[in-house]
Amino acid sequence: MNRPIISLTTDFGNSHYVGQLKGVLATLAPEAMVIDITHAISPQSILEGAVILQDSIPYFPAETIHIAVVDPGVGTSRGLLAAQIGTWTFVGPDNGLFSGVAREWPIKKLVKLQERRWWRTTVSNTFHGRDIMAPVASHLAKGVPIESFGPLLKDMLRIEIPLPDVLSLATHDEVLVKGKTLFADSYGNLLTNIRERDLERLLALSPNRALQVMVTDERDSRRILCVFVSTYGESLPGQLVSLLGSSGRLELGIVNGNAAKMFPLGATVSVSC
Amino acid sequence: MNRPIISLTTDFGNSHYVGQLKGVLATLAPEAMVIDITHAISPQSILEGAVILQDSIPYFPAETIHIAVVDPGVGTSRGLLAAQIGTWTFVGPDNGLFSGVAREWPIKKLVKLQERRWWRTTVSNTFHGRDIMAPVASHLAKGVPIESFGPLLKDMLRIEIPLPDVLSLATHDEVLVKGKTLFADSYGNLLTNIRERDLERLLALSPNRALQVMVTDERDSRRILCVFVSTYGESLPGQLVSLLGSSGRLELGIVNGNAAKMFPLGATVSVSC
Amino acid sequence: MNRPIISLTTDFGNSHYVGQLKGVLATLAPEAMVIDITHAISPQSILEGAVILQDSIPYFPAETIHIAVVDPGVGTSRGLLAAQIGTWTFVGPDNGLFSGVAREWPIKKLVKLQERRWWRTTVSNTFHGRDIMAPVASHLAKGVPIESFGPLLKDMLRIEIPLPDVLSLATHDEVLVKGKTLFADSYGNLLTNIRERDLERLLALSPNRALQVMVTDERDSRRILCVFVSTYGESLPGQLVSLLGSSGRLELGIVNGNAAKMFPLGATVSVSC
Repeated sequence: MNRPIISLTTDFGNSHYVGQLKGVLATLAPEAMVIDITHAISPQSILEGAVILQDSIPYFPAETIHIAVVDPGVGTSRGLLAAQIGTWTFVGPDNGLFSGVAREWPIKKLVKLQERRWWRTTVSNTFHGRDIMAPVASHLAKGVPIESFGPLLKDMLRIEIPLPDVLSLATHDEVLVKGKTLFADSYGNLLTNIRERDLERLLALSPNRALQVMVTDERDSRRILCVFVSTYGESLPGQLVSLLGSSGRLELGIVNGNAAKMFPLGATVSVSC
Repeated sequence: MNRPIISLTTDFGNSHYVGQLKGVLATLAPEAMVIDITHAISPQSILEGAVILQDSIPYFPAETIHIAVVDPGVGTSRGLLAAQIGTWTFVGPDNGLFSGVAREWPIKKLVKLQERRWWRTTVSNTFHGRDIMAPVASHLAKGVPIESFGPLLKDMLRIEIPLPDVLSLATHDEVLVKGKTLFADSYGNLLTNIRERDLERLLALSPNRALQVMVTDERDSRRILCVFVSTYGESLPGQLVSLLGSSGRLELGIVNGNAAKMFPLGATVSVSC
Repeated sequence: MNRPIISLTTDFGNSHYVGQLKGVLATLAPEAMVIDITHAISPQSILEGAVILQDSIPYFPAETIHIAVVDPGVGTSRGLLAAQIGTWTFVGPDNGLFSGVAREWPIKKLVKLQERRWWRTTVSNTFHGRDIMAPVASHLAKGVPIESFGPLLKDMLRIEIPLPDVLSLATHDEVLVKGKTLFADSYGNLLTNIRERDLERLLALSPNRALQVMVTDERDSRRILCVFVSTYGESLPGQLVSLLGSSGRLELGIVNGNAAKMFPLGATVSVSC
């Protein structure tokens, strides 16, 4: 049998909280391979966590167990869940963190984490990742069936991950796609909710891919047009450009610069040709 | 036999120094599982390293070999040691870094690292983690007895990790616990030296857990009262709260904010009911 | 057979891009041990990446496969390569990133990555680390011969990693070594292009190692003399010192401070006795 794989996606930063959680995994499932997806989710940003999970898990093998901890409600009445979605298993808070994943892949089984015998004996009020999720993931990795961890759930909480508007402007035989910036990556590039598939009609109308991307900062009504390119290497340092990034999202970036300092999260991005 | 486990706790940041140390471990003990506790100890803060080790190693299995490198005296006459404390083995500088661990668990054996045949052939003046500690930990992982690395030591250097004062105020049938902030975590929460056990009498006097926590910034005598809650999720964004955190320490935090920017390390924290 | 080892050196920061790349490795080569050298190369700094690789790979066992991604030209016509240099194999862009390695160890075989059957089916324009380099490294780890990945290359692109000048001042029977600062490490120490071997004649002339190190900031012609010490622990907090660091490079540091904030990259460093 292959070694089980457990991935981690959290907002813990570079802290020893990651180490404590890994200590629990090493104690209970020393045979598992543990892979950090990232610990740099902006603190308590469920939306960012949801989108990053959605964009990252396709690169993991079937049967990977994904622990995700962005959990501002830890210790309150929010539930915890284990979920089979697509070909993977997820363990985390029932707070919408898996909304992006569930939009792309079918939910096969949802379980509310309730059976305390699988948890650490002492459960803190503030760190369920270490005290509940890591032990549950370890036992899943050892082959304990998902139903053992608690009762089946009908559904989980979803957050709204905004979809872009695709508008047909009939008088001009044009299409306009309107979305917004979601979060910044480690290069300062702003990722949007506009995906490659949302631009299909536009790209079909514009065979040489000469799209116009307009960013509007609602705070001061500033509007900036940026060039649509196919890769950053085509652009001059300092230039604001937009392109379809590595996860198939339209993103805004400044070569050798930081677009995230120029526009806020939630700025409107309009694409036309 | 289980795979040996080697953990790392350093102030190296995200640097290639971590990679070089891991290269040595992969060369000498490729069968070991290497786990980062954290590399984000504030540079050269032995106190922070000592407390984070004390709080983190309980989550690791027996026989884990913990390498810890917060080593401002590297290359000077400060010694290096290997230590069996509790059920684990530690390798690091003899500068007080294991003071917290030794307060909680019994020292079973202390050895001064002196036998150069276990070290890298070339030892730099500034990176004993890579050149001495990693090779020693690798050989420990391979089963070399701790006595092989040098002569037994009677004791190691300790730093003072301040304990809180628990004061009985007889006239009022009250208890006052006085401690201080020790360091900030990755969320900007301030961890203190007041532990759950220090508050036991206070919590017994106050069955509904209505504690009063007063923080005094000695620089300007500013005093701020904060609400004692059981978890961050109970509080409003921006509110300064205190709670018993995941390591059993009283901590100060601001929901969606950064308490570490508000108070200095060493600020006095008084708890009454 | 030993487990294959794959190392990672990138400018991705703490992002999920690292996680996605590791997901591909875990899918295609789950038996490999994956080790992060660092992900904190300054964004798009090929020079810093080249020097850090040169300084770090000697600590890795023979046959390690090193993936390196500092790739501002991703998606343009720059090539990708696999290279046997020294006892290791390298996978990365043909943009000079392996110039430091190739200066120290002999190139044995160079291959242009061209055979798409070893790549991910879908290749993005902006993330060849995930879509090409990780699959190629995985197949190398599984024993696919390097020639399978594309045609042999005669040479690869090199960047200039400046060498210091070693000047003999005949009239004074003196030697002057002139170099420059290259990049800052995670402690804020400035690493230079002056290596221990460049100082050999100077050190021979000065048996008590009393070197004089002068730093010149060309922007304002400010010149600062710093003490040459053998380790940071010998110095007072706040003092600017220079020493031979753990990779054998002359470096400038401030004990408990940040030398990188004091001098720019490229500042001239002159050593005499």
